[in-house]
Amino acid sequence: TGNRNFSFKQWIQSVWEFCKGDINRVIFSLKVGLAVLLVSLLILFRAPYEVFGTNIIWSILTVAIMFEYTVGATFNRGFNRAVGSLLAGVLAVVVAQVAICSGHVVEPTIIGASIFLIGALTSFMKLWPSLVPYEYGFRVILFTFCLIVVSGYRMGSPVKTAMDRLYSIAIGAFVTVFVNVLIFPIWAGEQLHNELAKNFDAVADSLEECIRKYLEDDDSDHPEFSKTVMDEFPDEPAYRRCQATLNSSTKLETLASSAKWEPPHGRFWHCSYPWSEYVKVGAVLRYCAYEVMALHGVLHSEIQAPHNLRITFQSEILDASNHAAELVRSLGKDISNMMRTPKSTSLKKVHTSTERLQRAIDMHSYLLTSSHDDQNYSSKPLTKLSHTLSSTLSDLSYSLSKDGQGSGDLELPLNPQPVGTLPSAPAQAESYHEVMKKQQRRLHSWPSREVDVFDEGVLEMDNLPRMRALESTTALSLATFTSLLIEFVARLDHLVESVNDLAVMARFKDAGVQKYTEILIQNQTQ
Amino acid sequence: TGNRNFSFKQWIQSVWEFCKGDINRVIFSLKVGLAVLLVSLLILFRAPYEVFGTNIIWSILTVAIMFEYTVGATFNRGFNRAVGSLLAGVLAVVVAQVAICSGHVVEPTIIGASIFLIGALTSFMKLWPSLVPYEYGFRVILFTFCLIVVSGYRMGSPVKTAMDRLYSIAIGAFVTVFVNVLIFPIWAGEQLHNELAKNFDAVADSLEECIRKYLEDDDSDHPEFSKTVMDEFPDEPAYRRCQATLNSSTKLETLASSAKWEPPHGRFWHCSYPWSEYVKVGAVLRYCAYEVMALHGVLHSEIQAPHNLRITFQSEILDASNHAAELVRSLGKDISNMMRTPKSTSLKKVHTSTERLQRAIDMHSYLLTSSHDDQNYSSKPLTKLSHTLSSTLSDLSYSLSKDGQGSGDLELPLNPQPVGTLPSAPAQAESYHEVMKKQQRRLHSWPSREVDVFDEGVLEMDNLPRMRALESTTALSLATFTSLLIEFVARLDHLVESVNDLAVMARFKDAGVQKYTEILIQNQTQ
Repeated sequence: TGNRNFSFKQWIQSVWEFCKGDINRVIFSLKVGLAVLLVSLLILFRAPYEVFGTNIIWSILTVAIMFEYTVGATFNRGFNRAVGSLLAGVLAVVVAQVAICSGHVVEPTIIGASIFLIGALTSFMKLWPSLVPYEYGFRVILFTFCLIVVSGYRMGSPVKTAMDRLYSIAIGAFVTVFVNVLIFPIWAGEQLHNELAKNFDAVADSLEECIRKYLEDDDSDHPEFSKTVMDEFPDEPAYRRCQATLNSSTKLETLASSAKWEPPHGRFWHCSYPWSEYVKVGAVLRYCAYEVMALHGVLHSEIQAPHNLRITFQSEILDASNHAAELVRSLGKDISNMMRTPKSTSLKKVHTSTERLQRAIDMHSYLLTSSHDDQNYSSKPLTKLSHTLSSTLSDLSYSLSKDGQGSGDLELPLNPQPVGTLPSAPAQAESYHEVMKKQQRRLHSWPSREVDVFDEGVLEMDNLPRMRALESTTALSLATFTSLLIEFVARLDHLVESVNDLAVMARFKDAGVQKYTEILIQNQTQ
Repeated sequence: TGNRNFSFKQWIQSVWEFCKGDINRVIFSLKVGLAVLLVSLLILFRAPYEVFGTNIIWSILTVAIMFEYTVGATFNRGFNRAVGSLLAGVLAVVVAQVAICSGHVVEPTIIGASIFLIGALTSFMKLWPSLVPYEYGFRVILFTFCLIVVSGYRMGSPVKTAMDRLYSIAIGAFVTVFVNVLIFPIWAGEQLHNELAKNFDAVADSLEECIRKYLEDDDSDHPEFSKTVMDEFPDEPAYRRCQATLNSSTKLETLASSAKWEPPHGRFWHCSYPWSEYVKVGAVLRYCAYEVMALHGVLHSEIQAPHNLRITFQSEILDASNHAAELVRSLGKDISNMMRTPKSTSLKKVHTSTERLQRAIDMHSYLLTSSHDDQNYSSKPLTKLSHTLSSTLSDLSYSLSKDGQGSGDLELPLNPQPVGTLPSAPAQAESYHEVMKKQQRRLHSWPSREVDVFDEGVLEMDNLPRMRALESTTALSLATFTSLLIEFVARLDHLVESVNDLAVMARFKDAGVQKYTEILIQNQTQ
């Protein structure tokens, strides 16, 4: 029993963690309990029961179905239920009256036909793209219509049935809205606001994590790809949050459409608050996050730049990425605090450090484009590109570099050496020159592996050929990485702009103006 | 009225198009109508009504709530409703008996407390991550429990109320399942199968579209970014489908979880068909699609390689991308036809053409790393990278190239000429040598723009500084593009593997074996 006791303790603890993670969850649960209890009291006490009768049961159903997590979603669902019930009620009364007037024999035929028609029509309409958000409303129309028409037929007076149903639904709806709005309301707008700010942090964290991993990575073995792609890289928590950001478009849209139903509240005090602008900012942020995903792709790519080469540009890469992450984080903080702070300074910092990175790459671009061994080409048909005339320059520089450094390496051209087995140089301690020399030697010591001879036998499914990388492409991988980083920075301009648009439309407090007026006041007092 | 008539015609036409687009929509609507009609007949005819009584109304509710688009989703919802109702029924009967036994005064207290408790508990449990898929079941528990307990209290005999409710729900559920499964069933498995195959086509199309645009693009003006990012690039239909593929993870998962509820059917005849494997293949495909998104990002990047440079590698890029797209498309076709065809040949083709591309980039890498003007650096503080020793080689090749070509271009170093205004050379007609010469000259004629002097005034929000690109980085943009293409190809290995896994687990027909046996038979008959 000790073991069982232990797991029970664990279970209690995980429930406790879950509650502590977001106290709103507990509040929501208690509120639902309260709302159902309030409606039940109408039946449990004798006085209201004698007034309302058994029909009051429908209000319990209404509470159970209408009560949603956020205020906006509850209003939205309530709207669907109210309009649906009303439409269905009117329709049902009209049909029932027509059926009654048409005589005893035709009556059930008319009722049956109308039920079939309404069933088919509402089902078709809820598939129509622009009506999909009202899916629940169509369900309500269908079953309310059927209930009123059918019970009207058996119990007579469809108008009374409809009225009874409608006002018991109204009571349920009133209790739901009352409890949901007045007792610790959970606003969809607030949730949307926090979600967006959180997404900014996720992108910034993920960028930093990715850069750190890229520079740390000392060519050690990676876990098998197919495992990591399904587990979503368990050792990279920020990456998962970034991917969650990419998949958050539906969440943001749902919250925004709920938030539109909410009255002005709390920090979001002015009417027609621009909730849809949040979705737009989210879209631009996702556009930036695609670059982080691409960076992450290079990090886990099969084709890898050697570690020595990466750390050559370490300080520039770190500088640019840290500034970029800082900018993203400060944008998120601005949204979170509903402030407008001038971003020119941070943007300038990011641009300056990115330019430094560009220039560093620019100056040392020869590192990215290794010269190549002749014998790789002699055995193969020449492509049209190999007899161009203007390549003489590169040939010259190539032969110079070959003369300059140990051509002894060329003696083992058919011994494919994996990257991981080369001793990783403690580069920080060595002089830059030495690192470069080693680098160049290393690029030479990697011969292209021969093209595999593929068996094209019919049963060769399990022995699939593998993609191979030329060594020059491994160096270009670094260029790709930095280009993607630079592209990320380029997209930040748009992000800053969209956040600025949001700030203007949502009338965030202008920290700049505040500072400006403070300076003015200071000057006046001096 | 002519105008109104016209719009009505249009409306009819769009409805017609919608129906024709997927005939299943009409079938679904008619099926819902039929199911509701069938249940209503139980009340409209006198004989069954006398047997079942008014409680039969609950079966209408059940049909309206349980009837879903696909068979699997209906089963899933039915399971939720059945288990929820049963649990609620048992609980309610127990609580009601306890309440009755405890005497007249305490009875309403016990009932009220139990309603509050069940309300709070079910609401809390449906927020628990692993129980979220059963959200509907918890709703059912809540309202069924309340209804039985409350009406039992007022009308006596909670057991009878519970039984009446349960069997009318059972009738509704039976009719729903009967109509949904036996009349033109819409299988979630079939939908999932087709959706996945469609996603393969979307990725292949999007890749080809992206490459075509990249090579076509003659540096003409792009529409404003902020517009295109919200409209999702209206002139690129395949891109939107690719993005839909990226957002399809929830759709695939929903369909797969529905499909698991379905019995073997049609082409998916064997038990425990690996539906979850479809989700995995979808994940790997999305992993490939991220590279297409990154390629698309380079296509719409602010930092662009000049058109001349792009078309230099046109044939290699086209070759590699066409083979890759073909492979992706044939994988999709294999899934769609449930065939296994050997992929070694196509993979080899893709790899060979990608290697050609790599080699071409490798040989002409000097084009990607332009040499740079000295005056750009003289005015700025030198970074630590600028006084390295090993850069002598590149300096040598630089000075050679400078001597070789018109240094007259250097006379206009402060006249930033936009790319679009240069006459786009009809490159195909010129000799390769000439194109290269022009290219080199052009790289020289682009001076770095001076660093903007940023005003750091406090009210400068609308005048945000813009990211600028050094010209060498513009050339590296091509390297990025090709690297991403190569990485896409590298990921295809995993895609082929995962499709192969799916084919094995789902026992697709082996076209290889078929061919093999055909050859055997041929040999024997000869």
